Amino acid sequence: MAQAYWQCYPWLVLLCACAWSYPGPESLGREDVRDCSTNPPRLPVTAVNTTMRLAALRQQMEKSNLSAYIIPDTDAHMSEYIGKHDERRAWISGFTGSAGTAVVTKKKAAVWTDSRYWTQAERQMDCNWELHKEVSISSIVAWILAEVPDGENVGFDPFLFSVGSWENYDQELQDSNRHLLSITTNLVDVAWGSERPPVPSQPIYALPKEFTGSTWQEKVSAIRSYMQNHTMAPTGVLLSALDETAWLFNLRSSDIPYNPFFYSYTLLTDSSIRLFVNKSRFSLETLQYLNTNCTLPMCVQLEDYSQIRDGVKAYASGNVKILIGISYTTYGVYDVIPKEKLVTETYSPVMLIKAVKNSKEQALLKASHVRDAVAVIQYLVWLEKNVPKGTVDEFSGAEHIDQLRRNENFSSGPSFETISASGLNAALAHYSPTKELHRKLSLDEMYLVDSGGQYWDGTTDITRTVHWGTPTAFQKEAYTRVLMGNIDLSRLVFPAATSGRVVEAFARRALWEVGLNYGHGTGHGIGNFLCVHEWPVGFQYNNMAMAKGMFTSIEPGYYQDGEFGIRLEDVALVVEAKTKMN
Amino acid sequence: MAQAYWQCYPWLVLLCACAWSYPGPESLGREDVRDCSTNPPRLPVTAVNTTMRLAALRQQMEKSNLSAYIIPDTDAHMSEYIGKHDERRAWISGFTGSAGTAVVTKKKAAVWTDSRYWTQAERQMDCNWELHKEVSISSIVAWILAEVPDGENVGFDPFLFSVGSWENYDQELQDSNRHLLSITTNLVDVAWGSERPPVPSQPIYALPKEFTGSTWQEKVSAIRSYMQNHTMAPTGVLLSALDETAWLFNLRSSDIPYNPFFYSYTLLTDSSIRLFVNKSRFSLETLQYLNTNCTLPMCVQLEDYSQIRDGVKAYASGNVKILIGISYTTYGVYDVIPKEKLVTETYSPVMLIKAVKNSKEQALLKASHVRDAVAVIQYLVWLEKNVPKGTVDEFSGAEHIDQLRRNENFSSGPSFETISASGLNAALAHYSPTKELHRKLSLDEMYLVDSGGQYWDGTTDITRTVHWGTPTAFQKEAYTRVLMGNIDLSRLVFPAATSGRVVEAFARRALWEVGLNYGHGTGHGIGNFLCVHEWPVGFQYNNMAMAKGMFTSIEPGYYQDGEFGIRLEDVALVVEAKTKMN
Repeated sequence: MAQAYWQCYPWLVLLCACAWSYPGPESLGREDVRDCSTNPPRLPVTAVNTTMRLAALRQQMEKSNLSAYIIPDTDAHMSEYIGKHDERRAWISGFTGSAGTAVVTKKKAAVWTDSRYWTQAERQMDCNWELHKEVSISSIVAWILAEVPDGENVGFDPFLFSVGSWENYDQELQDSNRHLLSITTNLVDVAWGSERPPVPSQPIYALPKEFTGSTWQEKVSAIRSYMQNHTMAPTGVLLSALDETAWLFNLRSSDIPYNPFFYSYTLLTDSSIRLFVNKSRFSLETLQYLNTNCTLPMCVQLEDYSQIRDGVKAYASGNVKILIGISYTTYGVYDVIPKEKLVTETYSPVMLIKAVKNSKEQALLKASHVRDAVAVIQYLVWLEKNVPKGTVDEFSGAEHIDQLRRNENFSSGPSFETISASGLNAALAHYSPTKELHRKLSLDEMYLVDSGGQYWDGTTDITRTVHWGTPTAFQKEAYTRVLMGNIDLSRLVFPAATSGRVVEAFARRALWEVGLNYGHGTGHGIGNFLCVHEWPVGFQYNNMAMAKGMFTSIEPGYYQDGEFGIRLEDVALVVEAKTKMN
Repeated sequence: MAQAYWQCYPWLVLLCACAWSYPGPESLGREDVRDCSTNPPRLPVTAVNTTMRLAALRQQMEKSNLSAYIIPDTDAHMSEYIGKHDERRAWISGFTGSAGTAVVTKKKAAVWTDSRYWTQAERQMDCNWELHKEVSISSIVAWILAEVPDGENVGFDPFLFSVGSWENYDQELQDSNRHLLSITTNLVDVAWGSERPPVPSQPIYALPKEFTGSTWQEKVSAIRSYMQNHTMAPTGVLLSALDETAWLFNLRSSDIPYNPFFYSYTLLTDSSIRLFVNKSRFSLETLQYLNTNCTLPMCVQLEDYSQIRDGVKAYASGNVKILIGISYTTYGVYDVIPKEKLVTETYSPVMLIKAVKNSKEQALLKASHVRDAVAVIQYLVWLEKNVPKGTVDEFSGAEHIDQLRRNENFSSGPSFETISASGLNAALAHYSPTKELHRKLSLDEMYLVDSGGQYWDGTTDITRTVHWGTPTAFQKEAYTRVLMGNIDLSRLVFPAATSGRVVEAFARRALWEVGLNYGHGTGHGIGNFLCVHEWPVGFQYNNMAMAKGMFTSIEPGYYQDGEFGIRLEDVALVVEAKTKMN
């Protein structure tokens, strides 16, 4: 699955920055989108009435003496996918796209989202909302400065701001005499009230031993040695990303769509293991597995999820040093650690260690891919039989491949929403068909299917592009060159510790040669029954250097706007090369 | 010419960090290096007695109440090569290598330099000096903290510290209660006294019109438009690098070895052009060329070189904003600009505009390369005739190619010290033969020649590796793969604005394939009768994106320690590709 479609390459930046307009001229005269220029405004049936919701939120803002409140699109763990009860921006604005920030002031409300979602936002939002298309924090702050008078307060929930985004807002508002106020009670949640979906409470279970690479005790010991060997000698590591805790304890649940995680934090110190979680979700057996009846260094002490801030604050009052991976930590927990007791790295040791799979984890991930390939082959055979009959569409196809995966051993559902796209739809970023909106598969069009599964042993992700009729010469050439890129990068021999970004162009060279290219990343790490996009492995500037035992997808593509899309994706393992010399 | 040999790739970092010892065990028992462990110490004839020099410097330090004084290896313009009168570190320590920092305290003195220079330092320094092999600012500061008592002062010359290195020292010394004191009078110069070589005073001349791409007036207008279109609206640009001023005014002289520059700064504002230079070096004709008899926006106002700090300070007191390229600016001029009046970028607009050659500059640079190639071919023919006779050595070869270049039209000498290296010497970084120390060229060894010329129309740089006998199978394979890398990168088609670092690996792939690699950069920009290493063009992380009209060297290599070295270097021009599609 191709990530970060929206991350334009430098030579596209100007295009993005110029594509600003409000309301989009493309929406004029269309019936399926709102028109706020008429009186009364014309709203499509898909628009959500947010008047009551905004009134409820503004009441809360008034109590806290706020002139503006920022509502991001994330959860407290910087998760890629978020749970229903965390969809605050969607609830307050009506706009359900996965990326976008909302800001509500006393009088106005606005959403900032990127080009993938402009039409969707115009369909879902009512005229209480402005739509802004330049999504940088600077532009959000520029709007806030125009709307919020001097000396007044701008509120935010510190658990929904990564340390980096908080620093950006803080810096942009510096010297502006608007006060950025951190409020740990989320005001949208208060306004949402009893209608807010409940926080998940399904059991949290331990993975059977045969599906884990190491015991949790071995993993804890590895992290503790990392701490001991660290030049800054941290006494504790705070883990905020949900896959960090799931990986560390070999525990899973189903709080997040497509990801078998559960809401939690871990504070792992040199002498204790503190797991912040809803305790009632453990069976007696799992409690025993975690060794929760003691306080020795190899016992897991359970504390309530809501106590994380106080727990970290209390620990930080001692003679300690706390290591955090800054990328997945929110300001809500960062804020309570005095700077002199903080050791920051881009990624926590769990992220770094998890990225390199041991031989058992490699075998598990491979086994899941072999079974997954059976489902994909069955699907391709089924398509070859049924597409000529005209009985398959994008949505029924997606349902079928999802079902084929579920038939495989150890299946635990898809690892992301299946991208099943025919003809011009395959050129759209992150397109998925719905029951209502889809295209029929035919002999006249190319078809792209990007899908993956969660299995107890591994997470999979694969893309194939096919044509059952006669592709054009251009389609054949583009397909061949995408395939050349996939093969060239997959076969590359490179020195240990090479960064992905310096070899990524091997997947593009064959396309570049004839003036073609693609506008997304070339690959990403993948987990053992964890994230389908597992950082920090990949080919982007902030990915870690390649090492033996890492898995990465390799997925070049080519997209002809309004016509077709091609992507060929496999998951590759970094192995030691046997070279002629050296 | 391969730059930055010493910049180890990540997977070599550990090796570098481990190679620490004092004194080097490799030096024990050798007669050509010092032995400070005996009493009295044993010094080679090449060692310099620095006792009097240190005493003179310490006297100056005492007057300024300093407990330590830092002496870097650079000049006030961050030049790659420095003039004799700027060789302060060499004079005070005896060690003449091009890279290394010295620190002198009341009782001790130490030099930090990298592995290329360890033996040379042990040959040239007497036992007043410690040699340190871990060259980071952190290690220098760690030593200072051990030697300088709490509360005392550490002095430095702000004109010899880039803004970045000053920030590093400042940060490392923060909270240490040692005070970093900026002293604008250089104390080594005072100690050096009348023995210090004079500052150059040769004429500064204007290049004939046929050797320039644009007039200085056109260049000034281009920089002023850049300022006007800049979001921060700077009112002036301060130019510190010597090639910036030389390029801007189409002026040249010969203050710096291999570089036709003259000591100068330019403060170019929206309404004035102020050139800080030794005015007496201009002929009447050149003064007229510069239009120095007026103060209008297109008149050049000459001010004394020594007045730069006061001049910038006075300008900065007005309602102005000063743009600087941080990479080539020293703390000496940065320090006098209030932060709110400063606009910093990595490179000045002159650096960015100069990097892209216009069509006339392209034609000039090509013409110089054609003539240069004649000299190189003549040299290779001469070698083929004379090496079998056993009459050529590395040094006489270097002298011959330098002479052949001088015979070419518009020659102005070599653009760097010719690297003429036979057999195992070609595997050494930055090796150049001397009259005393050189190797005979023979049919049994590979020979590498990396050389270039300065011509009025362009600067050249080319490397060829040859063998007149029978190379081994390994040498043939390594040579072929180096050549493949050169060809692969030279022929690459890539999108506009691609960064060099993402395509650099195409020069390495053929070597990687069999387990080989090289430990230096793959190329660098080059000037029109300016620097042979012209930043910011190249393939490193801090180089600017590739654009039509840039020239870069492409120079993969392979080095077999103790045996042979191969490098194949050409200068390539970035042109618009005619691709099959798009």
